Amino acid sequence: MAHSGTTDCLRLIYNPDMSASFEERLHRYARLVILGGINIQSGQELIIGADVAETPFVRLLTEEAYKAGATNVFVIYSDEPSTLIRYAHGSDQAISYAPKWFADALGSRVENGAAYLRVFGSNPALLKDVDPKKVAISGKAGAEASKKMQDAFSNMLSNFAIVGHPSTAWAQAVFPDERAELALSRLWNAVFTCTYVDEEDPVQAWNEHCAAIESRRDLLNAKNFQALHFEGPGTDLRVGLAEGQRFAGGRVVTRPGIICSPNVPTEEVFGMPHKDKVEGVVHSTKPLSVRGRMVDGIEMEFQKGAVVSAKAKQGDEVLQRLLETDEGARRLGEVALVPNSSRVSKADILFLNTLYDENAACHIAIGQALGENMEGYGKMTPEERATRGANDSLIHVDWMIGSDQVDIDGVTQAGSTEPLMRSGEWV
Amino acid sequence: MAHSGTTDCLRLIYNPDMSASFEERLHRYARLVILGGINIQSGQELIIGADVAETPFVRLLTEEAYKAGATNVFVIYSDEPSTLIRYAHGSDQAISYAPKWFADALGSRVENGAAYLRVFGSNPALLKDVDPKKVAISGKAGAEASKKMQDAFSNMLSNFAIVGHPSTAWAQAVFPDERAELALSRLWNAVFTCTYVDEEDPVQAWNEHCAAIESRRDLLNAKNFQALHFEGPGTDLRVGLAEGQRFAGGRVVTRPGIICSPNVPTEEVFGMPHKDKVEGVVHSTKPLSVRGRMVDGIEMEFQKGAVVSAKAKQGDEVLQRLLETDEGARRLGEVALVPNSSRVSKADILFLNTLYDENAACHIAIGQALGENMEGYGKMTPEERATRGANDSLIHVDWMIGSDQVDIDGVTQAGSTEPLMRSGEWV
Repeated sequence: MAHSGTTDCLRLIYNPDMSASFEERLHRYARLVILGGINIQSGQELIIGADVAETPFVRLLTEEAYKAGATNVFVIYSDEPSTLIRYAHGSDQAISYAPKWFADALGSRVENGAAYLRVFGSNPALLKDVDPKKVAISGKAGAEASKKMQDAFSNMLSNFAIVGHPSTAWAQAVFPDERAELALSRLWNAVFTCTYVDEEDPVQAWNEHCAAIESRRDLLNAKNFQALHFEGPGTDLRVGLAEGQRFAGGRVVTRPGIICSPNVPTEEVFGMPHKDKVEGVVHSTKPLSVRGRMVDGIEMEFQKGAVVSAKAKQGDEVLQRLLETDEGARRLGEVALVPNSSRVSKADILFLNTLYDENAACHIAIGQALGENMEGYGKMTPEERATRGANDSLIHVDWMIGSDQVDIDGVTQAGSTEPLMRSGEWV
Repeated sequence: MAHSGTTDCLRLIYNPDMSASFEERLHRYARLVILGGINIQSGQELIIGADVAETPFVRLLTEEAYKAGATNVFVIYSDEPSTLIRYAHGSDQAISYAPKWFADALGSRVENGAAYLRVFGSNPALLKDVDPKKVAISGKAGAEASKKMQDAFSNMLSNFAIVGHPSTAWAQAVFPDERAELALSRLWNAVFTCTYVDEEDPVQAWNEHCAAIESRRDLLNAKNFQALHFEGPGTDLRVGLAEGQRFAGGRVVTRPGIICSPNVPTEEVFGMPHKDKVEGVVHSTKPLSVRGRMVDGIEMEFQKGAVVSAKAKQGDEVLQRLLETDEGARRLGEVALVPNSSRVSKADILFLNTLYDENAACHIAIGQALGENMEGYGKMTPEERATRGANDSLIHVDWMIGSDQVDIDGVTQAGSTEPLMRSGEWV
């Protein structure tokens, strides 16, 4: 009964002409996410964040989670039209309010071992007609309210994952010249390819893919570089690395010892910049979608780690507001290496979704550093972290700086350089 | 943009042929619920509990709440197919688990002034193929977990309301011989009629209707009866009233002084039985839907307030499990008077939904007493409440005992009787 209902709803929401094979692939995707992504444990509680339009997929996730022995699946749904209604009719008080009581309860539960899975398929242009000032106020309130949750993630207190879910609006933004159904179908195909769903055993294929990233990560860590140097059109950037930082990538081991894949898909090996040791200029190589708005053509200059000038050809106002969030918003929290030969890169699609686009090219992120990049990060005081060069901020926004025209060198502790990537590929 | 999205979704979910007038009526209903039902205050937070299938209506509620000055609208969605998936694939541990961490957070928020609105349109037969033992275990766990929330309601700490929302499954259960769309349309028409949505000014009409109930309530309270006596086919029941109880009905005033209508629709004037002073036999006059199962033909005998024998022609197992919940499940927590001339009764529909059916006939409820029926209830200790005769239980289940063949008398403190209802109408 549940199954027949699910199928009807799938046809209704995803595509009236949807083939049986799509349903099967969607179910395989759900299984991959539960077993290969979040890796839910028997006896563990699962919390899912999703949009109401994703309900049919959430049902498949719920089924797989219970089959894997989950104690409970708790879903917190958002709804894009309701978000717009709030911006249209909410008072100033409403716009600056975030339900901290709920975020705290959620954070406590994750601290106590619940797994958290975010299903993500937002319309990249959702907020294009909303006053960016309101969006910034609301975004900051939301980030402040969910600090406990963010800390739980940074400190890897439990297994968590974020996975993509195409919506019609997202697909149409990516393929503006296609019919809606075809756009959606193309985007789903890309998602299934990038996440190894079409392989004979998706979970095994996924784990092998992650293992390959992890061996690249281990090689980089063995080199013990003091900095990475990016050089390309409009870019000459030296990213000093935080003291005692380690590159991460592929799967992670949480504090309680559960192995999970925080991002599905993933292609990157990423490290922690030193918040005071970034120097030079950098140009973005792809547009990004931030808070429902497009930002493109970013040009930024850093001195002693901090942004000293920044502009964007498109969405400059959003960029400026981001940088004004707090002191840490003007410094780097992540630097990541991705080869052009990655599946996401080979899909040759501008996904307008960081989860995907950050896996198509090398990138940096302004804002919060990631706990995965430092041994013992979770047990350090904020002062200890800062001394090592770890950045602290309410935001973490990735943007692409790699392309087949950008070269990357590693700078050894002795000061010599070693070629790492040439024309977008590992040397 | 929000509006056009909402409209598309309304057409999709409610009825592809839906007329513009339906949309308008649905919006009027949302306005009535926000202004006449929950009566949201400017600066107040609203928490809505709803099913994902009710999203389009929730959007209208959200719009009206923000227009009325709500600080935030937080929606917690349930999903019927996911409920079945849980029963089908959840372990024993999963079935006996309820997320108390969330219920507590919700309860605390309501204690601190958030309004709570429940949108209710469950499929009455949802759980018909699920093991009743599992349903009972899960139901008890859920009730125990949400005790804080229930106490907040009983003590009227904030404004709350429960309102109906027809679903296709509910409509088809009510009108099994109709086409799905026609069944849904008939049920919506009944909902709009019973809630005064088709009146020129629904909020004003609603408030006038409530005022009429309130004057009946005040008259009953002035009589200061010690008991009510029900007599009809298979029924000879004397319901002693709790000490210091007062009849309630219509709107209530919460502890912070907000006037709200806890039930939309409402037709009843209800009082608090004395948990030790119910004597005699009683037959149900309508079936009811409990935990997704039909229960019909109840015959119950009381001595000194407690059930000494009980059986149901249909759904007896569910009834027995209900009675086994705790000691208070075998005693009465409510007795209510409803005239046959009420709009709900005149609709002449077996709604299979207590919110509606309890407004079509006089009824009693086994389980928890209602704080509205006793002055100062919220400040009393459990012992003080028990001394007055207020019943305590995890459940509160209403069932119908009135019809045009049942007469009701009031028993004065001096022991004489006064006719209250004859053939289902107020004398």
